[in-house]
Amino acid sequence: MSQRFFVESPIGEAASTRLVDSEAQHLAKVMRAKLGDEVTLFDGSGQEFTGRISAIGKSAVDLEIVQRRPIDRELRNPLTLAVSLPKGDRQKVLVEKLVELGVTRLIPLDTQRSVAEGTPAALARLLRQVIEASKQCGRNRLMEIAEPLTLSRLIETTAAAELRVLAHPAGGALSALSPSAAATVAIGPEGGFTDDEVAAAQAAGWEIVAFGPRTLRIETAALALAALLAKQ
Amino acid sequence: MSQRFFVESPIGEAASTRLVDSEAQHLAKVMRAKLGDEVTLFDGSGQEFTGRISAIGKSAVDLEIVQRRPIDRELRNPLTLAVSLPKGDRQKVLVEKLVELGVTRLIPLDTQRSVAEGTPAALARLLRQVIEASKQCGRNRLMEIAEPLTLSRLIETTAAAELRVLAHPAGGALSALSPSAAATVAIGPEGGFTDDEVAAAQAAGWEIVAFGPRTLRIETAALALAALLAKQ
Repeated sequence: MSQRFFVESPIGEAASTRLVDSEAQHLAKVMRAKLGDEVTLFDGSGQEFTGRISAIGKSAVDLEIVQRRPIDRELRNPLTLAVSLPKGDRQKVLVEKLVELGVTRLIPLDTQRSVAEGTPAALARLLRQVIEASKQCGRNRLMEIAEPLTLSRLIETTAAAELRVLAHPAGGALSALSPSAAATVAIGPEGGFTDDEVAAAQAAGWEIVAFGPRTLRIETAALALAALLAKQ
Repeated sequence: MSQRFFVESPIGEAASTRLVDSEAQHLAKVMRAKLGDEVTLFDGSGQEFTGRISAIGKSAVDLEIVQRRPIDRELRNPLTLAVSLPKGDRQKVLVEKLVELGVTRLIPLDTQRSVAEGTPAALARLLRQVIEASKQCGRNRLMEIAEPLTLSRLIETTAAAELRVLAHPAGGALSALSPSAAATVAIGPEGGFTDDEVAAAQAAGWEIVAFGPRTLRIETAALALAALLAKQ
């Protein structure tokens, strides 16, 4: 996969578009692009575009759209990960890997032992990481960064028709998967879900699962379950 | 899981042991341990020990072994990952996650497009990362860091009775797993395996698999396949 560039505003049926800020600078300065060069663009709508450079400015590059290709690299069934976010670099690893594995939506999960906050600035940073990972792995739709939810709100709002899975050391192995189901996975904070939280999920019909007898870090548990569920 | 300390030399049936260097300093200075305190020790042999502190020196802490517990947190079937190592922090992420997922052995894989070298210093660094991850996740056996192998040597030396899997974008989905088989997974470098390399593996009976239509980074491919195969 060659270099891909992300366009913030939807391209739709427009004849031209513009790259700005870091994307424009990367193309103009790092890649030393010239007028007439063609590059691959995506805008998160599910299409890929070929853009031909028509103007190079100081902080913007204009491109003529010369081709549109619907290229779907999404999972067959929507997969949501609701994760009590780890801190710092581990958050970046989490987002990058979930994007690569094809996860549809990440919900920052607020639990009794959670520490990281889902502030607007934090959510904006997560979205930036989603874009970077999408450029690299070839996804033409962005993994959604949803508004933070408490676990009880997640339990209330997740449809019972979904495969609903909560990770907990005392859980069982993941059951056989229905190939036609959407799935939501809840991953707790470093200290784990409290007994009350696990009981509430179980009472609502969630499957309580463990991934072997080792203590997994937040992001490891998230990506291991994402890998198992993404293989549909 | 409370703090665990790694003892370099096998404890075996000895009545006492000694922590040195960073382990000793961590216990004495960061944890402010006192004479008579009890801590959990492991030496990579598959047992866990309770040690009672009998002396605290400048760079060593002596402990009396007061309990031995065989605690097995390994996979039922051996799982080997042969990986063309990524660079820098991604190498650390790879090792940490493979340890947590229970992988038995990591072989640095030398392929036509590989860049990172398996120097003795690099292998020693990987082993240090294995120990750190084992302390955290509760494994009492260390994931083995094997000597680097070329792909052709890997193909020659891996028993045909194993499930043998090579990751490649043009591959199929992972087939149904035999619950009783050891497995070896080969993960290529950033540019992927060459056509010749894929053909050689296929000719030797390896299963060529892809994890969906996205371009996975080395460490993401490794941990996704490890997760699928660790769930036995």
